[in-house]
Amino acid sequence: MDKRTILIQLDSDPLPSVFDRVVAIDAGADEVLSYGGVRVEQVRDLVHGAIFTRGPKDLKRTAFFIGGSDVAAGERLLEEVGRHMLPQFGLRVSVLLDANGANTTAAAAVRAAARHLDLQGTPALVLGGTGPVGQRVARLLARQGADVRVGSRQRSRAETVAQAIRAQVAGARVEAVATGTAAELQAALTGRTLVIAAGAAGAVLLPRAARAACPDLKVAIDLNAVPPLGIEGVEVMDKGMQRDGLIAYGAVGVGDTKMKIHKAAIARLFERNDQVMDAEEVYALAANF
Amino acid sequence: MDKRTILIQLDSDPLPSVFDRVVAIDAGADEVLSYGGVRVEQVRDLVHGAIFTRGPKDLKRTAFFIGGSDVAAGERLLEEVGRHMLPQFGLRVSVLLDANGANTTAAAAVRAAARHLDLQGTPALVLGGTGPVGQRVARLLARQGADVRVGSRQRSRAETVAQAIRAQVAGARVEAVATGTAAELQAALTGRTLVIAAGAAGAVLLPRAARAACPDLKVAIDLNAVPPLGIEGVEVMDKGMQRDGLIAYGAVGVGDTKMKIHKAAIARLFERNDQVMDAEEVYALAANF
Amino acid sequence: MDKRTILIQLDSDPLPSVFDRVVAIDAGADEVLSYGGVRVEQVRDLVHGAIFTRGPKDLKRTAFFIGGSDVAAGERLLEEVGRHMLPQFGLRVSVLLDANGANTTAAAAVRAAARHLDLQGTPALVLGGTGPVGQRVARLLARQGADVRVGSRQRSRAETVAQAIRAQVAGARVEAVATGTAAELQAALTGRTLVIAAGAAGAVLLPRAARAACPDLKVAIDLNAVPPLGIEGVEVMDKGMQRDGLIAYGAVGVGDTKMKIHKAAIARLFERNDQVMDAEEVYALAANF
Repeated sequence: MDKRTILIQLDSDPLPSVFDRVVAIDAGADEVLSYGGVRVEQVRDLVHGAIFTRGPKDLKRTAFFIGGSDVAAGERLLEEVGRHMLPQFGLRVSVLLDANGANTTAAAAVRAAARHLDLQGTPALVLGGTGPVGQRVARLLARQGADVRVGSRQRSRAETVAQAIRAQVAGARVEAVATGTAAELQAALTGRTLVIAAGAAGAVLLPRAARAACPDLKVAIDLNAVPPLGIEGVEVMDKGMQRDGLIAYGAVGVGDTKMKIHKAAIARLFERNDQVMDAEEVYALAANF
Repeated sequence: MDKRTILIQLDSDPLPSVFDRVVAIDAGADEVLSYGGVRVEQVRDLVHGAIFTRGPKDLKRTAFFIGGSDVAAGERLLEEVGRHMLPQFGLRVSVLLDANGANTTAAAAVRAAARHLDLQGTPALVLGGTGPVGQRVARLLARQGADVRVGSRQRSRAETVAQAIRAQVAGARVEAVATGTAAELQAALTGRTLVIAAGAAGAVLLPRAARAACPDLKVAIDLNAVPPLGIEGVEVMDKGMQRDGLIAYGAVGVGDTKMKIHKAAIARLFERNDQVMDAEEVYALAANF
Repeated sequence: MDKRTILIQLDSDPLPSVFDRVVAIDAGADEVLSYGGVRVEQVRDLVHGAIFTRGPKDLKRTAFFIGGSDVAAGERLLEEVGRHMLPQFGLRVSVLLDANGANTTAAAAVRAAARHLDLQGTPALVLGGTGPVGQRVARLLARQGADVRVGSRQRSRAETVAQAIRAQVAGARVEAVATGTAAELQAALTGRTLVIAAGAAGAVLLPRAARAACPDLKVAIDLNAVPPLGIEGVEVMDKGMQRDGLIAYGAVGVGDTKMKIHKAAIARLFERNDQVMDAEEVYALAANF
């Protein structure tokens, strides 16, 4: 009989996420070993426990999931997990980062856009583009060949993100834009056919008035689930809904695809022992949904 | 294939109870997600993780169990869990409170009495009636129509409990009595056919001498498992044993029924997604045992 | 259907060992209840939860595993676990100590030696003999009738260990030797056919030069996995390898047997409810591998 599949959940929050545990179970992980409050210096022993216990042919049946509400902390854990694998001896296991759901959310949002637009060359604006989800959305769009504006109240912060994307994605078409004032927002929106809002809860990033002056806009996707939403006029349950001539998606409308991607990513972990699944690898699964 | 059943154990003690985990497994929960040291402010995310992960038809296969040695802390967790359900969207899961075994113990004790007495109208005395188990025993007896005296060393504390029961149980026949002195105890016992002792370990609440002067007493149930027992002359293993003309139950004698009720309550959780199981709901299961 | 087997993992480290959890799963435990940062004063309730939840015929399907990097802490937990069993009522479960892998490592090392030598009467030297693994190796060798030298930089510390072994093993042939200087090491090695090095990582306990002057040596086993190894010339992957006329074992070479012993010990736990498995009981399983 095959060995049971084991997902080792590393969560930077004190209590490991119930959400991530339930999804892991429903995705088919036989056992979920959950760790909360995980700090970087504790990762080595956890990784060694994963890679030194099963033989090479069974290592694909052990994997790591990195979660927690703090995406930056998750990224540090991901890096540290990689540091303690021993690929030179074939001793490694696959790992998926989805801290705060950032990768699956970004993938689902870009996937929603791709249902209606050929992303290659599409003029896009990412509002709240400097947060963990916004950065990933912008990067994924850039990889698909979109012409991406990264929006932030402070242009300098957006520029940092744009530069990082240019460094990661060869040939990326990315520019930073300020969106703090109505005039800046108007300029940022000019010519855009796609807007994805990935800002913090409670901030309206795109008032209805601004939209009216943006005739080229075709698809609007809002990833905020808590009212007031980031794009005025979009509803949280919208899933490809026609609204004022736009195709609209709200957070819950995107959530169904996000959940499917999340489960597919967990299942994928157990196919090989050498995967590192960050935004791009997660997005590669999205085409199925 | 049906999704696995998931019991989320919230325990206010630092280490989640082994007892509750083993009983949950033996009751048939496929997965038990155990959390220790849970504080009220951590509950929201745990509940959201439970209600946002599965579709409406599968939500009954996720449930909460609230335990821990501190019953008041458990009650606060129960209240907070309820606060974050979203019944208006059908997004809720069932929850069982059994902190310190208080509900299952009280239910088993009252069930033991009901095997021998028609509780309707039965004159009863609950010794140690202000503790978490004692309060529940008194309330359950009142709901069955018994004529209940809540005993405590300080009558004022017993009165608080009696008032709470009157507020919860329409038509409850409950009075507070002091039991601190031999004379007070004698008065409290007068005319009682049922005594249930639910006091703290190490305190003899009903000495043999006091019992002798109480000719109407028919059933004596002691819920203390650690010598000296609360009712002198009852043995911890007694389960309907005849002792000096009384029918006697000790803590272990009640424990078998308690365990059956506990398992039935866990199993019941997974039948519907809208149950809140506190003392009364747990007692409703006791008639089967 | 039989009740599921439950292994309760008590680990003195803050995060319970992934290694031990994975091995427990692969050894067939249906459920592993993992506790990290366990302190002695928390053990009582954990044990009560284990022994008060299942009937006598099912108690063998619950067991404790005690781990963690601190072997002394593990020994204190083992002692405390035993204190709260209630064998007079048949209320006990089996328990295995393998903190820091000390018991399975020591058993595997002695087993490796026994493949090549009749341990009865074999002159042996244990380098690093005062650490938790070294002590166990020396004790197991003494029980097999070997003529054991316990080596340490300070002879007085080795003498403490030797005395403890004499107190535990009737007829043990054990002596303490200093190994701090080249001359002391030379004297300690004289006439030895077996050397097992169980010292701390990073310390070369037996330089090649010292070996050259030791013509009787037949088997050299090094339990250090991190270079520099404890016995110069032995490689970490060696498993019965011929090296300079010696039969050599390195840590990884011993590790395969160690893993088999570990799994067999877990499986053994669920055969009876009255076992306390420390070094000797673990070694008794080693003959199968």
